[in-house]
Amino acid sequence: MRDVAVIGVGMTRWGELWEKSLRDIYVETALLAMEDAGVDQLDSLYVGSMSSGLFNGQEHIASMAADYLGQAHVPATRVETACASGGLALRLGFLEVASGESDIVLVSGVEKMTDVSGDDATFALGTAADQEYEGYQGITFPGLYALIARAHMAEYGTTREQLAMVAVKNHRNGALNPRAQFPFEVTVDQVINSVKVADPLNILDCSPITDGAAAAVICPAEKARKLGKEVIRITGSGHATDSIQLAQRKKLTWLEATYQAARKAYAMADKKPDDIHLAEVHDCFTIAEICVMEALGFVEKGWGGPSVEAGETAIGGRIPVNPSGGLKSKGHPVGATGIAQVVEIVEQLRGEAGGRQVEGARIGLAQNMGGSGGSTVVHIFERD
Amino acid sequence: MRDVAVIGVGMTRWGELWEKSLRDIYVETALLAMEDAGVDQLDSLYVGSMSSGLFNGQEHIASMAADYLGQAHVPATRVETACASGGLALRLGFLEVASGESDIVLVSGVEKMTDVSGDDATFALGTAADQEYEGYQGITFPGLYALIARAHMAEYGTTREQLAMVAVKNHRNGALNPRAQFPFEVTVDQVINSVKVADPLNILDCSPITDGAAAAVICPAEKARKLGKEVIRITGSGHATDSIQLAQRKKLTWLEATYQAARKAYAMADKKPDDIHLAEVHDCFTIAEICVMEALGFVEKGWGGPSVEAGETAIGGRIPVNPSGGLKSKGHPVGATGIAQVVEIVEQLRGEAGGRQVEGARIGLAQNMGGSGGSTVVHIFERD
Repeated sequence: MRDVAVIGVGMTRWGELWEKSLRDIYVETALLAMEDAGVDQLDSLYVGSMSSGLFNGQEHIASMAADYLGQAHVPATRVETACASGGLALRLGFLEVASGESDIVLVSGVEKMTDVSGDDATFALGTAADQEYEGYQGITFPGLYALIARAHMAEYGTTREQLAMVAVKNHRNGALNPRAQFPFEVTVDQVINSVKVADPLNILDCSPITDGAAAAVICPAEKARKLGKEVIRITGSGHATDSIQLAQRKKLTWLEATYQAARKAYAMADKKPDDIHLAEVHDCFTIAEICVMEALGFVEKGWGGPSVEAGETAIGGRIPVNPSGGLKSKGHPVGATGIAQVVEIVEQLRGEAGGRQVEGARIGLAQNMGGSGGSTVVHIFERD
Repeated sequence: MRDVAVIGVGMTRWGELWEKSLRDIYVETALLAMEDAGVDQLDSLYVGSMSSGLFNGQEHIASMAADYLGQAHVPATRVETACASGGLALRLGFLEVASGESDIVLVSGVEKMTDVSGDDATFALGTAADQEYEGYQGITFPGLYALIARAHMAEYGTTREQLAMVAVKNHRNGALNPRAQFPFEVTVDQVINSVKVADPLNILDCSPITDGAAAAVICPAEKARKLGKEVIRITGSGHATDSIQLAQRKKLTWLEATYQAARKAYAMADKKPDDIHLAEVHDCFTIAEICVMEALGFVEKGWGGPSVEAGETAIGGRIPVNPSGGLKSKGHPVGATGIAQVVEIVEQLRGEAGGRQVEGARIGLAQNMGGSGGSTVVHIFERD
């Protein structure tokens, strides 16, 4: 298979974008990525979206995306694997370019979540869980992650403060990100005393409801070099699943899909966790970032909490995690999140991340997760 | 890229399957395909579904599919492009096997449409159209195809009887298909006098609301030969889009996405329309089959109606179309339809189609369409 590179990225500020429609947000962002890449004709496009049906009453958004982007007739594919839909769009675009089927492919993610009520949004997000055996029994998404948090605290002695420190770190990073939905700092006290959502998780432990999109243009690395572009290669790609239902897992606190997707990506890239200079990971809840760090091999199992407390995952630490602010501060338009991770990593590897810059970053990893861990996509990126 | 073959197919009888859930239908069918192929471990799976969110309150069905099939941990991908979601699942599986990334891939489609009211189903199906510019203005899916039918009648003199003859032919074929939802014959008079849905289309011009799934196992052709399997190769694959909105097209009666997807598939397979021995096409409404035949090049533009009237598309005719009974008689669980076409073609090319057998069939074509033609996937199959 051919080497593949990212040659353009695009993203606007995320938030409650009431003045823009689903297609507006998509097109605006896609055009930014195409402009950054210097291309005006695509061979193919992928769009990740978790539930444009329930949020916007609109399926068939691949056709809509191609059409409103002025690219009608190109093959266009919508993929969905809950909150990992964006990462999956990247993976399929990567396979299409690597296989030789296409050269210039736009991969993107979009979600417009504020067109419905909070109750309807909670229902829509709950469709990422096992609706029959979880949702209809009354558990919501924060409830599932609260179970994971309680188990982690009981088994490994992870403290309430350590959970809060994930939010503190990510908001500190997000305050430096002009595209973040909530670009302000928070303190451990503020997190611990914020409104309870599902014990032990408070509202400042949870990623928000967000409207937004992100896009990237990929092509063969050789072509990128000919175009005179900075070449950020995708050197590893892994995708795996786990039981959709939390109760079916051997261990509540272990993210097997993340472990397996990472193992494949590390093997393809010939890298190990210690080789990674920065990572964007799926911190939909503070406990999620702790479990993800463990499954990625950045720390031993159970040491996620102490690692955050020691500052190892801060910018300037041993392995900076979520320099963008993560889902927590940057926002979490579910289908778009996986591609926003790519935007951050590309800007970091290009040295264009401003106040959030991780010095000397040359190798980055993106981990994007669906549901309570039922699916995960991991990619590794390297600057030439 | 490697040659790819279909080595197993599975499908049960379609209809109103109230005693089975979405996952039941999926797993039952997937296991039939795996048994037919003689495999018990997958490298990857794709599932096409148009709107499990709106129909079943369940997204993230790729994780659910892998999990309940006993294949948790394999990469699993849900794709959606409205009623062409099944065909798209096949195309992406095909690219994954062709690229060398995976060997044994299960491609499938599923839709459980009767868990909601008729009004809610009409809304869900309408999300395949441009919701802002079509749906919210009051037009339903039959309404869009009725506009196409009126334009075709005005421009080419297509008659009401010719539209009805599509239904008559497909029900005649479907009466021979033990898996059809409506396996009975109808007459031109019955079609013309059935309940009006959207003038000139009556209820017997429309495909029904259906629960069902279909599945196929694909692998490298070389591996299929080693396994001693009958080798049905996928020799052509094309995918294209058009404006999602009918009013944006230059000509209401021309399906440009079908034309372009077919052109790519013919080129890849080095075939022309005259080389095809049978075709399964997207007859969501009687007028659709007429327009599709024209866009596939089976007849000149405008000659779809007279061609049906002359019996050219009947079993035993010049180019048998929809020997399975098509969407009209077999049923149309939207995401599953594209894979059911594969099931029929594989059985025809194997010579296992019973009373529906097209004599000497060695080359088949499947055309699967989303919305009012906003996306189309075409595949060509050949027996070794």
